[in-house]
Amino acid sequence: MSLLTVGTVAFDDIETPFGKVEMAIGGAATYISLAASYFTQNINLVSVIGDDFPQETLDQMSSKGVNLDGLQVREGEKSFFWAGKYHDNLNDRDTLDTQLNVLADFDPVLPASYKNPDYLMLGNLTPDVQIRVIEQLENRPKLIALDTMNFWMDIALDSLKKVLTMIDALIINDEEARQLSGEHSLVKAAAKIVEMGPKFLVIKKGEHGALLFHGEQIFFAPALPLAEVYDPTGAGDTFAGGFMGYMAQTDDLSFENMKRAIIYGSAMASFCVEKFSIQRLLELNDVDITNRIKRFVNLVNFDAKL
Amino acid sequence: MSLLTVGTVAFDDIETPFGKVEMAIGGAATYISLAASYFTQNINLVSVIGDDFPQETLDQMSSKGVNLDGLQVREGEKSFFWAGKYHDNLNDRDTLDTQLNVLADFDPVLPASYKNPDYLMLGNLTPDVQIRVIEQLENRPKLIALDTMNFWMDIALDSLKKVLTMIDALIINDEEARQLSGEHSLVKAAAKIVEMGPKFLVIKKGEHGALLFHGEQIFFAPALPLAEVYDPTGAGDTFAGGFMGYMAQTDDLSFENMKRAIIYGSAMASFCVEKFSIQRLLELNDVDITNRIKRFVNLVNFDAKL
Repeated sequence: MSLLTVGTVAFDDIETPFGKVEMAIGGAATYISLAASYFTQNINLVSVIGDDFPQETLDQMSSKGVNLDGLQVREGEKSFFWAGKYHDNLNDRDTLDTQLNVLADFDPVLPASYKNPDYLMLGNLTPDVQIRVIEQLENRPKLIALDTMNFWMDIALDSLKKVLTMIDALIINDEEARQLSGEHSLVKAAAKIVEMGPKFLVIKKGEHGALLFHGEQIFFAPALPLAEVYDPTGAGDTFAGGFMGYMAQTDDLSFENMKRAIIYGSAMASFCVEKFSIQRLLELNDVDITNRIKRFVNLVNFDAKL
Repeated sequence: MSLLTVGTVAFDDIETPFGKVEMAIGGAATYISLAASYFTQNINLVSVIGDDFPQETLDQMSSKGVNLDGLQVREGEKSFFWAGKYHDNLNDRDTLDTQLNVLADFDPVLPASYKNPDYLMLGNLTPDVQIRVIEQLENRPKLIALDTMNFWMDIALDSLKKVLTMIDALIINDEEARQLSGEHSLVKAAAKIVEMGPKFLVIKKGEHGALLFHGEQIFFAPALPLAEVYDPTGAGDTFAGGFMGYMAQTDDLSFENMKRAIIYGSAMASFCVEKFSIQRLLELNDVDITNRIKRFVNLVNFDAKL
């Protein structure tokens, strides 16, 4: 099945306790599409870059089945840039710099061939841009998932609430869920957020795993305990990409299958953090992924003997 | 099988966002033995109280199969007292008051009938007292588990390191594991701590679940997502009590069975936090526990379809 994804394609300066990289490849749509490419090769990407973005990375994405017809390249302009420094615990980070550049007036124009996606992953962007994408679709996708962040809750809550009524699955982290709902308990937060529109809610808790809420059902996926986390950047987007890639591959909207998709998303995220930037996502194969999934099975599997 | 437990039997003043209780029943050995009593009725308790402790609570414990022959009652003295206030997130708390009282010079004397336990749970106490208990045993138990806290790492590290060489399983929380090992990564922390003695290490992460480490094996048990957590006091001790009670009941030291024991411990802890003090631990039955275990199965169960 086809997957359409919209989000940033960008540069990051990243500092973690394990090192520092400058002008590393980043961006939500980059991570999402690379992670999804291990599950489906029918991926359409919508984004915008300047003329400073390396052709080599674009070629790598194309070779993995990511269609870049919807990637706008602005001559004489610069790509979106973010700089951040992680604390020693790797859960907290400070944003040191954000330069919108080409993103400032980004209008996501969907090529005609993009307008009938089976699955749609809206990466973190201003809610109005996310709405603009949905409005250009000719048919309703089987599943629309959306990521967002606290910043949009602060400055664009009305637009965010509008787009929440247009989607199926919201994928956010615990602090975002708490801010959006005004509830500390994630169970209570989930109940309030589901009332805002999305039938499915995924709450990412970083190294503490992820929760999937749907109706009365709750599923918990652990994060893999790792000795070293080199760079958490992009882990959330990689999770979303693995999740939606697996959904597009299997084309099965049952809760049972969505649980598997959450595990695949968690597995892809566990790879992402093992090296800086997108490095790890370029070098995986199916055996790596299957072995990683087995580790998740062993991690949580028990026979209750009831 | 028989379970011996040593720890405090005490009073707590507790304030949470949901209310306040004064002189509520508390203490590690109280929670441990009550939780374990749902799995084995062969429980011997060693502790010390003043003459201020209510007979009603002692009768409740006895009626649940907890033998109190090893509970010293000091006439004219007061029981151990702790007062704490939880933050809104319920993960952090401030200690407002600690009065050692009878605990100041506690010498744990084991009655003759206590000296051959099959299983031994050493609740959080000064490491020297924990060592004194082990030294009085006539036979090595099948499993010795121990809880401790940061405070003993600060002021009694040598004694703590000594007792770690005498036990099988250490049950501590994530911050304690980090302090004891000097490692932030729990995987690295576990590797260092296992070298200090215990073959099994359980790291409790509160609302984020618990990890069991043994050799190269890792098992993760989630915490049950709850809408309301009224009072986290005693949850860690209840976890340990459920864990050791299940081990004593099943008498199976395999890793597979220990995984189940961790889930039973988590289930008992999930009950504990639903009401103040030991209230919830007095009113459960086997059906409650089986239904709770089913919720844990549903929470993490998935078919990887590999």
